[in-house]
Amino acid sequence: MLGNFEYCNPTRLYFGKGALDNLQGELKKYGENILLVYGGGSIKKNGIYDKIIEILNAAGKNVFEVGGVMPNPTVEKLYEGCKAARDNKTDLILAVGGGSVCDYSKAVSVSAHCEADPWEKYYLKMEDVDNQIIPVGCVLTMVGTGSEMNGGAVITNHETKLKIGHVFGENVFPKFAVLNPEYTYTLPKYQMVAGIYDIMNHITEQYFSGTDDNTSDYLAEGLLKSLIHSSRIAVKDPENYEARSNIMWTATWALNTLIAKGKSTDWMVHMIGQAVGAYTDATHGMTLSAVSMAYYRYIMQYGMEKFRRFAINVWDVSPDGKTGEQIAAEGLDRMESYMKELGLAMHLRDIGVTEDMIDGIADATLSMSGGYKELSRDEIIQILRKSM
Amino acid sequence: MLGNFEYCNPTRLYFGKGALDNLQGELKKYGENILLVYGGGSIKKNGIYDKIIEILNAAGKNVFEVGGVMPNPTVEKLYEGCKAARDNKTDLILAVGGGSVCDYSKAVSVSAHCEADPWEKYYLKMEDVDNQIIPVGCVLTMVGTGSEMNGGAVITNHETKLKIGHVFGENVFPKFAVLNPEYTYTLPKYQMVAGIYDIMNHITEQYFSGTDDNTSDYLAEGLLKSLIHSSRIAVKDPENYEARSNIMWTATWALNTLIAKGKSTDWMVHMIGQAVGAYTDATHGMTLSAVSMAYYRYIMQYGMEKFRRFAINVWDVSPDGKTGEQIAAEGLDRMESYMKELGLAMHLRDIGVTEDMIDGIADATLSMSGGYKELSRDEIIQILRKSM
Repeated sequence: MLGNFEYCNPTRLYFGKGALDNLQGELKKYGENILLVYGGGSIKKNGIYDKIIEILNAAGKNVFEVGGVMPNPTVEKLYEGCKAARDNKTDLILAVGGGSVCDYSKAVSVSAHCEADPWEKYYLKMEDVDNQIIPVGCVLTMVGTGSEMNGGAVITNHETKLKIGHVFGENVFPKFAVLNPEYTYTLPKYQMVAGIYDIMNHITEQYFSGTDDNTSDYLAEGLLKSLIHSSRIAVKDPENYEARSNIMWTATWALNTLIAKGKSTDWMVHMIGQAVGAYTDATHGMTLSAVSMAYYRYIMQYGMEKFRRFAINVWDVSPDGKTGEQIAAEGLDRMESYMKELGLAMHLRDIGVTEDMIDGIADATLSMSGGYKELSRDEIIQILRKSM
Repeated sequence: MLGNFEYCNPTRLYFGKGALDNLQGELKKYGENILLVYGGGSIKKNGIYDKIIEILNAAGKNVFEVGGVMPNPTVEKLYEGCKAARDNKTDLILAVGGGSVCDYSKAVSVSAHCEADPWEKYYLKMEDVDNQIIPVGCVLTMVGTGSEMNGGAVITNHETKLKIGHVFGENVFPKFAVLNPEYTYTLPKYQMVAGIYDIMNHITEQYFSGTDDNTSDYLAEGLLKSLIHSSRIAVKDPENYEARSNIMWTATWALNTLIAKGKSTDWMVHMIGQAVGAYTDATHGMTLSAVSMAYYRYIMQYGMEKFRRFAINVWDVSPDGKTGEQIAAEGLDRMESYMKELGLAMHLRDIGVTEDMIDGIADATLSMSGGYKELSRDEIIQILRKSM
């Protein structure tokens, strides 16, 4: 049953081949000091950096830069961004990159004017924002996190081996996002499929919970079917605009609050995956894929009816002459085949996890209660071992 | 393929049993003069009127009223509302009712301060708004139009027999909407099922167009499946909160611009239905149901693959051993059975259309070009005759 909730998502999205043409109009809404945030420098190779600098210059903006944002943005990098944002009296943070760059920019936006230590305030204590927030705009070059239309901002502390996401409120959502599917063409296949699985897992994290009949679950099934269809095309033909555009749009709607409305959500794969990420610095989507099958095969018994529905509605499993459990298991088998077809990491050992890390990863995993089973530390260890 | 587009929907939704508790907070954002707009007076019988007046009084507002908004709001009623809004220096129009009341309130919001004749400017000439817009908030008591989260505002001119919808931009969207599914319990079954079919037709109008693979169509299929499931429960058990809440949420997302993104749309059933409405003043949803089967059976040949997909994905038609045409036809047969099961009007003669009106209705029908076939006047007449 649909529970009580509030829905408002104010982010303005510009989608399509000419989407960057709208940046000029957006820039007029903000002051003259722009902090340009980006990652490892691929935007300098593919020409996007030059295009954006040209638009910023034409708009008469003062441009300051924080480059080198890493795939799992660190707390030290956060402090660096905060100083740059403050020192340059930043009016707008322009994030150009994927989910890490967007997440990082949002973390800077709430932290730059925060008098307390932002890691402690927003990540360890999960406090609300009560200081000035610098507006953020995004130009997306990588797809997966949905960070362009939500308040999520994951930061990693390697010293304490903690990778934590704070989901901020809508006043922290990007004010606008430019989504041109062509910008994702040059991404290496490994990153592309990791992003695709991140999308899929965002949807299943919200889908596998509850026993009520909920419109959100039907929307989730629609998004999953679109994603499966388009991702199979995109891995073979990365410059297929139709497929890449559908994946980009699905990513946004997979995690912009819509499909969680009126229901509980799981998020345990992300909790385990984030702990793996804190230990290995592995690509986020691969930390999710590596633990997913062991997790879902374990949890299936506690949410059988939903796994049965998943098999039929998402993976086209024929229910004729089969028990609910057989149907559900067949659905997960098809999901596993699909994941292998995409080339996802299916084992933790493949992404740098060693036996000696397992206890630590289990300790660093936050146990959530919204899914079909709240996991004990022993169960998390069992899932990690099965995922090795 | 997903075309270029901009997406932003700023409406804030409060959903659930306690949703009206949020009205107080919203009222603080606006000035003291509130124009309360409602329909035939059912809100006075079911207690919603008293609750709202209490909240408005407690907030210290000056309340002015325009009641008696009819199911197909007329241009004369629009002028009355404009005068009331102007005379009382209205700061917020609070629409309490269904789609007609919301549509009407939006029409007043753009027309009250319009120096030209609003019917001519916004409906005959389809011009943009260039004057002050009075903000609108909604408390929904009837479900179907999606008017609570879009810019649509249909007005009827009985003198010239024209029922025209202007789809205004997001600055005209309601600022907030209160959606309590319980408020829809007391609606008579005839209105309830008409609203349900209005929802279904909003989705199919956006679904039956284009030959590309588009995420929007997968979302549309999800909404349709949720609607079919919940409506079958609701017609038998009108106070089933789960079903009514899913229907309410589906209605909002069926027509808040999302599922039209990146694709062309049809809207011919609405064009014919609105012309029928101008001639008969029949309930909107019934004007759509009465012409739908004849329309879709005629148009099927031009969009066979999509009708085939519709049959399989929405109506669970098994494709085994059948031609595409057989599958598509079986899908429409199942849709027809469902419509009869709900108790929808399946013939124009049942909602007041007489033979002598057919030429006039065809003349009053605007022909659209976004669907699978742009209809000639002869084809519209043929569909009207088949629908008698």
